[in-house]
Amino acid sequence: MTREAVVGIDVGGTRIKTALVSPDGAVLAEAVHLTPPAVGDRLGAVAAEAVDRLVRQAGDPVELLAVGLVVPGLVDDEKGIGVWSANLGWTDLDLHGSVAASVDVPVAVGHDVRAGLLAEHRLGAAREADNVLFVPLGTGLASAMLSRGRLVTGSQWTGEIGHVVVVPDGPPCGCGERGCLEAVASAGAIGRRWSAATGLTGDAEEVARRTEAGEPEACRVWQEAVDALAAVVAPVVAATGTELVLVGGGLARAGDTLFEPLRAALRARLGRRAEVAVEAAALGDRAGCLGAATIALDLVGR
Amino acid sequence: MTREAVVGIDVGGTRIKTALVSPDGAVLAEAVHLTPPAVGDRLGAVAAEAVDRLVRQAGDPVELLAVGLVVPGLVDDEKGIGVWSANLGWTDLDLHGSVAASVDVPVAVGHDVRAGLLAEHRLGAAREADNVLFVPLGTGLASAMLSRGRLVTGSQWTGEIGHVVVVPDGPPCGCGERGCLEAVASAGAIGRRWSAATGLTGDAEEVARRTEAGEPEACRVWQEAVDALAAVVAPVVAATGTELVLVGGGLARAGDTLFEPLRAALRARLGRRAEVAVEAAALGDRAGCLGAATIALDLVGR
Repeated sequence: MTREAVVGIDVGGTRIKTALVSPDGAVLAEAVHLTPPAVGDRLGAVAAEAVDRLVRQAGDPVELLAVGLVVPGLVDDEKGIGVWSANLGWTDLDLHGSVAASVDVPVAVGHDVRAGLLAEHRLGAAREADNVLFVPLGTGLASAMLSRGRLVTGSQWTGEIGHVVVVPDGPPCGCGERGCLEAVASAGAIGRRWSAATGLTGDAEEVARRTEAGEPEACRVWQEAVDALAAVVAPVVAATGTELVLVGGGLARAGDTLFEPLRAALRARLGRRAEVAVEAAALGDRAGCLGAATIALDLVGR
Repeated sequence: MTREAVVGIDVGGTRIKTALVSPDGAVLAEAVHLTPPAVGDRLGAVAAEAVDRLVRQAGDPVELLAVGLVVPGLVDDEKGIGVWSANLGWTDLDLHGSVAASVDVPVAVGHDVRAGLLAEHRLGAAREADNVLFVPLGTGLASAMLSRGRLVTGSQWTGEIGHVVVVPDGPPCGCGERGCLEAVASAGAIGRRWSAATGLTGDAEEVARRTEAGEPEACRVWQEAVDALAAVVAPVVAATGTELVLVGGGLARAGDTLFEPLRAALRARLGRRAEVAVEAAALGDRAGCLGAATIALDLVGR
């Protein structure tokens, strides 16, 4: 029996995640591999190989309906342009054209976090909510928002909350500024700041464990991250009427070690008035490639 | 010649502003009067009297198409309910029903700031922009947002940025908390804080003049207001891709005394990356009643 499906491709700074997904949301095949150098020059080949590999892996015959590609950084979803990515090293790259030249089905292009939120809305932890702020806390930190079930997109900087300065003259950020949210509250920053303070090596997961154990330096770094996050999230919740803050990325695995103080910090900044739920995203690091599949399905009306 | 028109009514804590507006946006008549006590119990009479007075005032015969009513506080625009207003003293008031019982045309109900932004978008300073954050700085402080030309509305708390805590343990706010944005950056707060610091009496306009003259206490109070405003506005701009911050209310009359430091504070928090324009609203304190007329025109498809 031939099954209809789309391929979703999430090109990250370190890994490329791909999935073959049927219109009902079932994942028929998945693969992850390392991002090759100069990936921007070979997106066509990456897409064609992903399609071949996943279709072979699925076993049953597949009718490919579309391909979805998502990337980080600044993305013009409508024109299919990768406007800028620090990690992937491109500027004004024609993502749509590159992929469309190598596959003979329609191609959808999107932003990894925005598409990830669509997947959480369709398949994950935001199925019941229409006014959602999605904040994946990983190496980097960006956001996406649903208002009445629709993605909010304004300028090309939409979602770049990681580079809002929350601690003037704070720790240096990869972007060249100091005290950006990403430099205080991303998983990467938490590990780095704790290591710098203690002289020990360890990642955010280590800091979470030591926070649970009550170690003072870990608790301080952790609480500063939580406060910085609340300082940025609270105004957004108030201005847009967010009902659910969905936390994703590696840091979400810390569970209530993160969510309890974050809920408390948001209550302190919003009062009892603006009740907002804080929950873990459901799709983990698959949100991006399932999101890529979601925009591919949307493109062909499935 | 009979002209088609709608009546817009903006019920504020101090004044009721009303206007008779034609579908092309021309204001045919206007009136302002004091808000009577217990206005929530007599909205039907207020609306009927406004219609009578404005139609008489217009001179030419008028075909009334609809009435629009806007109020502050928490408003359920769709159900036409005044959920809560501290100033006007109501809870779950059936605004739509009260007015509809007294006029024999369709009635639209909305929030004063959200409707004011629609009027700025249709007739005022936001005509060219589709991604706009509107912040009227008056006695109180709330916001409204357009994303791709559509109002963003989520929970009933949407736009309540005035009660985001920006200065923990800061000055007391009318809401019972401390350090809310409204307690630092509203026109009312600026006057109060400067008076408390100097022992002199004066309003925000006075503080603006003394800031221009370089008086240290005035400059300090003014800059604290600007910084608090930027701390709330910057995350919203970043998360939603705002392209234009439109400042209204009495404080906007300070012009570049307000806008220049506000632009600088936003640049400091957003970096060069997220260019956002900061401009004065055009409709002043008529934004609310012109907004009420706008939602009335929208309701009847004009």
